Amino acid sequence: MKGQYVSPSGSSALGEHRYTSATEDRVRVLLVESDPDDAQLVCEAFGDVSTETAVDVATDGEEALEFLEQRDEATPVPDLVLLNLELPGMGGLEVLESIRGDGELVHLPVLVLTDSNAIDDVNESYDRAANAYLTKPSDPAAFETIANAIERFWFERASLPPIHS
Amino acid sequence: MKGQYVSPSGSSALGEHRYTSATEDRVRVLLVESDPDDAQLVCEAFGDVSTETAVDVATDGEEALEFLEQRDEATPVPDLVLLNLELPGMGGLEVLESIRGDGELVHLPVLVLTDSNAIDDVNESYDRAANAYLTKPSDPAAFETIANAIERFWFERASLPPIHS
Repeated sequence: MKGQYVSPSGSSALGEHRYTSATEDRVRVLLVESDPDDAQLVCEAFGDVSTETAVDVATDGEEALEFLEQRDEATPVPDLVLLNLELPGMGGLEVLESIRGDGELVHLPVLVLTDSNAIDDVNESYDRAANAYLTKPSDPAAFETIANAIERFWFERASLPPIHS
Repeated sequence: MKGQYVSPSGSSALGEHRYTSATEDRVRVLLVESDPDDAQLVCEAFGDVSTETAVDVATDGEEALEFLEQRDEATPVPDLVLLNLELPGMGGLEVLESIRGDGELVHLPVLVLTDSNAIDDVNESYDRAANAYLTKPSDPAAFETIANAIERFWFERASLPPIHS
């Protein structure tokens, strides 16, 4: 097992799910997801990839932006954001706009990961400079395929922008 | 063999390398690359992936923009652009700015694929809304790994924006 799951009552900066591994030399993902089942599937999928990955979960947009604004040791800017569009309160597109409007976060890779496959949502996400748009799989087991594809492309091949924290 | 290589004297719209396959139901990549050896390695790597892929090659920025502006049957807007930064004449960052400034192309996924691993180039690419930044491998055989990672993430999992052509 590459990571250690810290329960909601554990040490997570967000008081929510946190996947953490033994070393600090790992990729940090911020998952913005209000559905606890999907959040757990994503966390488990990244727990199974070869790259050491820490996944923090924000359950709504406000929590995500708060996390991204702290930029301290406990909550460094992540390497990658996975963003659902359907969130209670502030929607995912609004979160994306806030990230792209922040000079310190403008480079942050944001992958939309959502239930919708509506063309308007795809277009509006790329319009707001989402780096990519992914639709959640109907088969829960396929979250692993997504985590593997993200690992292969984003963690192993792409150069991620340097983190400003 | 999944594709058929059409030599520079063949039917390529650009009078350059073109990788074409038997059906029209395939992913179209525009590779903007002035180095003929690297262009060939990329074409061959995409010839070996499972997804039917047609790669058109533009050897400089002007040729790339001309190709993207035609939007006719022979030169439809590609699904994805692979863009070198080091090009004779207009540089890759300038090409990227032109694409992002064109209302019809603003959504087009552009992956930088370049020799440079300088932080400034990474930052300036993401600044101009490159979807991702990839460094060319030193081992020619590793172009296959890149093509596979692109296939896995971009062709198989991501929703690409609808093409306006």
